[in-house]
Amino acid sequence: MSAHPFDQAIALAAQPDGNWLGHTSAAYANMVGPFGGVTAAQALNAVLQHPQRLGEPVALTVNFAAALADGPFTVEARPARTNRSTQHWIIEMRQDGQTVLTATAFTALRRDTWSADDEPMPQVPGPAETRRADMRNGRVEWVKRYDLRFVHGFFPPEWDGTERDSLTQLWVRDEPPRPLDFASLTALSDVFFPRLWRRRASMVPIGTVSMTIYFHADAAQLQATGTSHLLGQARAQAFRNGFFDQTAQLWNEAGELLVTTHQVVYYKE
Amino acid sequence: MSAHPFDQAIALAAQPDGNWLGHTSAAYANMVGPFGGVTAAQALNAVLQHPQRLGEPVALTVNFAAALADGPFTVEARPARTNRSTQHWIIEMRQDGQTVLTATAFTALRRDTWSADDEPMPQVPGPAETRRADMRNGRVEWVKRYDLRFVHGFFPPEWDGTERDSLTQLWVRDEPPRPLDFASLTALSDVFFPRLWRRRASMVPIGTVSMTIYFHADAAQLQATGTSHLLGQARAQAFRNGFFDQTAQLWNEAGELLVTTHQVVYYKE
Repeated sequence: MSAHPFDQAIALAAQPDGNWLGHTSAAYANMVGPFGGVTAAQALNAVLQHPQRLGEPVALTVNFAAALADGPFTVEARPARTNRSTQHWIIEMRQDGQTVLTATAFTALRRDTWSADDEPMPQVPGPAETRRADMRNGRVEWVKRYDLRFVHGFFPPEWDGTERDSLTQLWVRDEPPRPLDFASLTALSDVFFPRLWRRRASMVPIGTVSMTIYFHADAAQLQATGTSHLLGQARAQAFRNGFFDQTAQLWNEAGELLVTTHQVVYYKE
Repeated sequence: MSAHPFDQAIALAAQPDGNWLGHTSAAYANMVGPFGGVTAAQALNAVLQHPQRLGEPVALTVNFAAALADGPFTVEARPARTNRSTQHWIIEMRQDGQTVLTATAFTALRRDTWSADDEPMPQVPGPAETRRADMRNGRVEWVKRYDLRFVHGFFPPEWDGTERDSLTQLWVRDEPPRPLDFASLTALSDVFFPRLWRRRASMVPIGTVSMTIYFHADAAQLQATGTSHLLGQARAQAFRNGFFDQTAQLWNEAGELLVTTHQVVYYKE
């Protein structure tokens, strides 16, 4: 049995100098370069695989410095500070000696404490009641690697400049199904199409500049979530002079908030 | 006339090796170490002062790796990637050779484009109609450097464990007034007291681990805002096993969204 395309995509080979060697994945190609969610997962994977890692990811920020070319890349992941139960990482991804991504990550050994969710899952029809979007004719490859079921906020019916809300709610999981882990949750955090396209019904060129993910879930919660769908919700707060932001959440079907995530995106026009 | 305490606090001296030398500020002391907002502003200032800087800040992520000791620190700010109109920075702050903060920043030359705010300023009484909180007996020094006027969500009346919402809305500006710039806006992004204290009426030990700021405003907008109050709003989305998140906005009195900001905070209990 061959590995899941996502596992193939994020595979890294340890190098003698302590860095990691990876390769962009044709299965997750975007319009220009690869799907950023998988690039982010590759960066995080250099921490997850690192022999000095302490604990699980709590925070990750990735900065997309340049479009990746199809081909190999190296990842350097360095523990900049290791405390008793927490660790801070600096990550750089390079192609041909040029930095294409910078990132920081924070990992920690978590303890059981009083907990509460203050962002309740929206009450929406479940994944079985929601029609799966047909992405077979999608213009980009990576969308075919996800089962996407839009509850609200699909692409606008016409690219006619009609302004509307920037909200999207959708059920999503890997296609074929794959048990959820920190790497796939990282990629899923970037699964929302650009808020500007919906807000303005205008498919202008865009590119994510920086994305931050806060992992509220631990490994046990991800394992319990397994291969079931997640509900994702994303909206923008401001579009201003070439950059807009996006704020998003991912819940599992049990209504547990697994991730809150934010990004700032370049747009042209 | 002496410099504003904030300008004294963020002052950096260029070193022969290209790094920057700064010093923690007694005027902005917190319970343990300095107010994180000023530490973040010091880190950003190493980019703002850097001779190779291109454009204005659009995104900043700071990771607080250890409590700073009172005293000097160095900041290394390195342009990891410079594109035609954008630039990616990696920043490290050190004390005694140990990393105490890591950060990444993204700067850009902005162009005028179609723009829209999708997070309207809450309709609240103005700063002149809102009573200024008396912080003269505050247990920490830095709160005395701000004019804070709470519209909603002040400290709970009793630290009795009563659960309530995690929302705070307040008018805020530097005290004494100081014209707004990217450095002060960075510090103001961290001005909200810990959401857990309000949510649970329990003053447990906390510490911000990572904070991300998206600057929607450009220098002209900050200059136009000047010394007037900003409306800040902050709430949590999840408290889970030792870490909670905070999502916040800052508007000027004209209702323009200047910043959206997020942080993840350690809590003990």
